[in-house]
Amino acid sequence: MSRPISRPVSRPISTEGGRAPVGRTAEPPDVPHRLAAQIGFIVEVDALKTVLRRSPLIAAERRENDAEHSWHLALMVTVLAEYSDVPLDVGRTTQLVLLHDLVEIYAGDTFLYDAAGAADQQRREQAAADRLFALLPADQAARFRALWDEFEERRTPEARFAKAMDRLQPLLANFHNQGGTWRTPGVTSAVERDHMAVIADASTPLWDYAQQLIEHAADQGWIAAGQTS
Amino acid sequence: MSRPISRPVSRPISTEGGRAPVGRTAEPPDVPHRLAAQIGFIVEVDALKTVLRRSPLIAAERRENDAEHSWHLALMVTVLAEYSDVPLDVGRTTQLVLLHDLVEIYAGDTFLYDAAGAADQQRREQAAADRLFALLPADQAARFRALWDEFEERRTPEARFAKAMDRLQPLLANFHNQGGTWRTPGVTSAVERDHMAVIADASTPLWDYAQQLIEHAADQGWIAAGQTS
Repeated sequence: MSRPISRPVSRPISTEGGRAPVGRTAEPPDVPHRLAAQIGFIVEVDALKTVLRRSPLIAAERRENDAEHSWHLALMVTVLAEYSDVPLDVGRTTQLVLLHDLVEIYAGDTFLYDAAGAADQQRREQAAADRLFALLPADQAARFRALWDEFEERRTPEARFAKAMDRLQPLLANFHNQGGTWRTPGVTSAVERDHMAVIADASTPLWDYAQQLIEHAADQGWIAAGQTS
Repeated sequence: MSRPISRPVSRPISTEGGRAPVGRTAEPPDVPHRLAAQIGFIVEVDALKTVLRRSPLIAAERRENDAEHSWHLALMVTVLAEYSDVPLDVGRTTQLVLLHDLVEIYAGDTFLYDAAGAADQQRREQAAADRLFALLPADQAARFRALWDEFEERRTPEARFAKAMDRLQPLLANFHNQGGTWRTPGVTSAVERDHMAVIADASTPLWDYAQQLIEHAADQGWIAAGQTS
């Protein structure tokens, strides 16, 4: 059984130290409207660096944030694209992972094992996308929204591979932490295998590899052995 | 005058809590050699998330790390590519910014205003590149190295635009912090203008914009007015 763990919360934006909150420092006059909008978006998305995930880093004792995670996925796409079961547009796949979590700036991170959070996740994230991408000029807003929709719908090879990276990366983090979020009550090797199965939609060799990691982790006691219920 | 501030130091990898250090958790048996090497690289570069820059975030009261920075640059490439003075291969430009700081995992971050650190920066970073990219299979090692060399040499439009993003991003962070690293002794609007001038090699409109930000910041007292020496 996959239990609800806790509800995601929006990250606070610190305003300590007399600094202006995000986007409050006015642009200088005479900046063209289109550029000002684009810079406004770039400044706003800085907040992705403050959205914490449950997953641990491998290289340090702390949780990962969404910006670091997105960067890591982009590098993984470049290194692992050759394992896609079908030819990929690597450039578009990279774009998909770079922006796939942007909506969490407003909607918060929904933990993979959080069933309650998942229930209204789609509604919250659609509203966040409406709000965030509207900061951009209309043509770019439409392009970003189309890419985010593509990722969510998982109908293209690029979106399926991007999603596979999104699952494989925390699996690697848990494996190299010899536990990580696998220590969450209710998570077993069978639950993890179910969650990771989307990798099979993108890459047979990476799905084989993911299963080996889970089996090895169960053998070592880093994840509870057992069935979903 | 641009003064040396301090020497960069390599980030420590925490080994507290009984966790295995990076890359020490053995892969399961039967993972193909090529995939194991690629995963080894992906696990190793997790450490980029622990390399701290001097630049502040906009959305929170802390310094930025290299992984977050690289992600932000990649998104900026997508949003701002239209301002390049010449047509760009956006996909390759994105790759350049995603990997441009990887060598700092071993070589540390060299602060823009650190003249002493800059003196042996090239030697340290070349050695780091030799070591890091060698984790990959030979064909991918060569591809990553070629991209990193391209970024460093700044001879292509893509590399010049990538470098422009690398300068514009901390300028935005300082502007929206109304100070940030501009508070460093020895930094003046003239020094900053010199450091930002590489933006002019990539984009006339973004160089105009950068100059507006610096002038506005000097007017507001967020950066010292004055000449280099």
